[in-house]
Amino acid sequence: MATLPSVSYSITVRLELDGGGSAVGSLTNAVEHVGGMITALDVASSGHERIRIDVTCAARDTDHAQAIIDALGALDGVVVHKVSDRTFLMHLGGKIEMKSKVPLRNRDELSMAYTPGVARVSQAIANNPDDARRLTIKRNSVAVVTDGSAVLGLGNIGPEASMPVMEGKAALFKRFADIDAWPIALDTQDVDEIVRTVQVLAPGFGGINLEDISAPRCFEVEARLRELLDIPVFHDDQHGTAIVVLAALRNALRVVNKSLSEVRIAMSGAGAAGTAILKLLMHAGAKDIIVCDVHGAVHQGRESLDDNLTWIAEHTNTAGYSGDLKGAVKGADVFIGVSAPNILTGSDIAEMNEDSIIFALANPDPEVDPEVAHLHASVVATGRSDYPNQINNVLVFPGFFRGLLDAQSHFVDSDMMVAAANAIADVVTDDELGPHYIIPSVFHTDLAQHVASAVREVATRGRSE
Amino acid sequence: MATLPSVSYSITVRLELDGGGSAVGSLTNAVEHVGGMITALDVASSGHERIRIDVTCAARDTDHAQAIIDALGALDGVVVHKVSDRTFLMHLGGKIEMKSKVPLRNRDELSMAYTPGVARVSQAIANNPDDARRLTIKRNSVAVVTDGSAVLGLGNIGPEASMPVMEGKAALFKRFADIDAWPIALDTQDVDEIVRTVQVLAPGFGGINLEDISAPRCFEVEARLRELLDIPVFHDDQHGTAIVVLAALRNALRVVNKSLSEVRIAMSGAGAAGTAILKLLMHAGAKDIIVCDVHGAVHQGRESLDDNLTWIAEHTNTAGYSGDLKGAVKGADVFIGVSAPNILTGSDIAEMNEDSIIFALANPDPEVDPEVAHLHASVVATGRSDYPNQINNVLVFPGFFRGLLDAQSHFVDSDMMVAAANAIADVVTDDELGPHYIIPSVFHTDLAQHVASAVREVATRGRSE
Repeated sequence: MATLPSVSYSITVRLELDGGGSAVGSLTNAVEHVGGMITALDVASSGHERIRIDVTCAARDTDHAQAIIDALGALDGVVVHKVSDRTFLMHLGGKIEMKSKVPLRNRDELSMAYTPGVARVSQAIANNPDDARRLTIKRNSVAVVTDGSAVLGLGNIGPEASMPVMEGKAALFKRFADIDAWPIALDTQDVDEIVRTVQVLAPGFGGINLEDISAPRCFEVEARLRELLDIPVFHDDQHGTAIVVLAALRNALRVVNKSLSEVRIAMSGAGAAGTAILKLLMHAGAKDIIVCDVHGAVHQGRESLDDNLTWIAEHTNTAGYSGDLKGAVKGADVFIGVSAPNILTGSDIAEMNEDSIIFALANPDPEVDPEVAHLHASVVATGRSDYPNQINNVLVFPGFFRGLLDAQSHFVDSDMMVAAANAIADVVTDDELGPHYIIPSVFHTDLAQHVASAVREVATRGRSE
Repeated sequence: MATLPSVSYSITVRLELDGGGSAVGSLTNAVEHVGGMITALDVASSGHERIRIDVTCAARDTDHAQAIIDALGALDGVVVHKVSDRTFLMHLGGKIEMKSKVPLRNRDELSMAYTPGVARVSQAIANNPDDARRLTIKRNSVAVVTDGSAVLGLGNIGPEASMPVMEGKAALFKRFADIDAWPIALDTQDVDEIVRTVQVLAPGFGGINLEDISAPRCFEVEARLRELLDIPVFHDDQHGTAIVVLAALRNALRVVNKSLSEVRIAMSGAGAAGTAILKLLMHAGAKDIIVCDVHGAVHQGRESLDDNLTWIAEHTNTAGYSGDLKGAVKGADVFIGVSAPNILTGSDIAEMNEDSIIFALANPDPEVDPEVAHLHASVVATGRSDYPNQINNVLVFPGFFRGLLDAQSHFVDSDMMVAAANAIADVVTDDELGPHYIIPSVFHTDLAQHVASAVREVATRGRSE
């Protein structure tokens, strides 16, 4: 499986070269020869004999970018000047900012937004705490909280290094659901301290989005915060993933005309995402599931199971299968992997039931090469943006929190998650549905609003208002 | 001292009244008769016999606003409909928001601002932590942290009710110094927990602005955080006030041609602000100071002094004066009050030294009626916006933090504070300086930039770069 050049590794190289006519052509050839892709070419200045030119091109990764720079520098008469990285340029000074929604042009406006006028507003909230959701940002704000322990595929890189991801998350909250999120990166990885810190900083926020906290600590952090706080707490790595997997699976099953309650599902991965997917699929009606981790199938006869694996053993794999992943996949209708790259082959997929469904979500390299899987399966999805059917949390969390905030919900439950999954699945019409289109694009108009409506409806169900 | 109507108590009253010609005149008369001030009058709709009209008027306070509404309702043929409060309208949904600085229009932009591109940026910071100030919002962000224990004059109203003030503060940071501040209202008033929470949430911020935390806890919170954190920690109620008082005093002394090292200063108030003012004045060269609290002068012979008062007793009042405030004020050159309303009279001021200076900063009612003080003193300043010489922290904190952030400073010290005070004082030119203009307006162009430059210069002094 060849990785394609991506704009996320895009560089701009400033070159000086001879003004001869063939010069530009030689640049293009050189970049394409090493597998790069030129996306822009700007002449910065042109003198009598030398011209300066900015070449922007997409590379596969950092080494590939360097290979492109080297190839350009090796050309006759070409001098490489500054190399800039578009992704780094975009991050200079951070990606988000705070804006005032009120004008502060003169004394009058100052005296309403700040002292003395603001005192009456604070007093009103002191008298009636519910007014906080009417008169402050609590109505629309979410804390994006991480301890930096499991950031993307990078692992435990700490709070400062996690900030670009958290800022990106905040930007996505705004872009897709007009939510004001602020990143809070914690300088502790102790469960008690994370829980207490989030509890203490919560009053100004309408919701907590936990992010990139490693398993198994994330389970306890989330469970305890849900007990302690009167605002919704959502660990996106668990539930965002679970919701979009359920949405995609619902539509994949529509494609192959099978039912969730009847299919056999083999899962690889029992971490944060895997466990959340498992529980949500079960809540939605799935019954026949075997979960595998690096030690093979989770079953009640296995030794040294932690709390989480014990729960899984007690609630899945009723036949007590005790073999490895390849054996679990044999005859299964669905494979869902949130684990490690290249652990299954085409022959493994070939031994699944007819019309099999493959969700190989390990990033950046899936559990099985999606092109190979396609030879044997009916529907294939990955976590990658360069294949069809990308399983992407961005489909979920903005709309999900929009619904929670609009409902002024004090909690999150599995019914809301199933409703959100159904809303995402329903965005794909019968006409559109097919093996290569089980899940909408993150840029699908109104997707977040559909999710928000579904969540809000469940969250306000039974309220008298 | 009569309080004037203020736009911070501005209401808009929708009325329906007979269409007769004299109707509008009667409205104006009615409002003015009860001391209100009409600032706008909009006809909302006009039918054959009845017209609807929106009357906006400024009141002194909530009771006064009600008196105006009652006076309007008592008019013949006038029906009062909806009454809206401009200050509350301004607060609906909160005063600040989060904005993305990067476009997220398509897949390419998403893949640079978020996964997969963002991973390289996070990895760069993991490899070189100093890059956090280059590639994240840490470069320009301040946490505005409160525990809600001493909010304006309202007291211990708790974290939710403090949010309008903290949001206002954040808006001012942006308005005057382009800083991205976010309010963090803490659900604890325990010193250890406040300290630990702020320490844990600090990594994403470039500075901490403590706000409205009651004394004496604020001293310990600040001192311990300064020890623990590598970003500047500034308690605005203490140091913001101290800096602007020093700035104003410097110019007031220019007006009366006296010197800080020679004047006798009597202070009322030994809380957070009073103590910070005292220490900064001493750092700037003041030598002869007596501090009074509700029990009279602080002196070494007094019993049951806490740590803070013990420090004050040991460093001020060398003559060991043990009387009350009135006695301390007698013969003094300067009175500085950050305490309680109406504790001094005109005769007290008359007994001060010639060309006395009065800073009566208790809000909303000063220690002495400023109009009465003016009969006996050369320079009078208050905390109020409806008198000349308003001592207002807004003059300080935006520019102060701008300088700290620009210098990437890891701490705050008294030299920076004196530099900031001098910068504020210097904005008033010799031509402008006078008894009624010792301090610039908060809207003075470039004020924050002057303060920032002065702070940055001190903060970077001695660095090789």
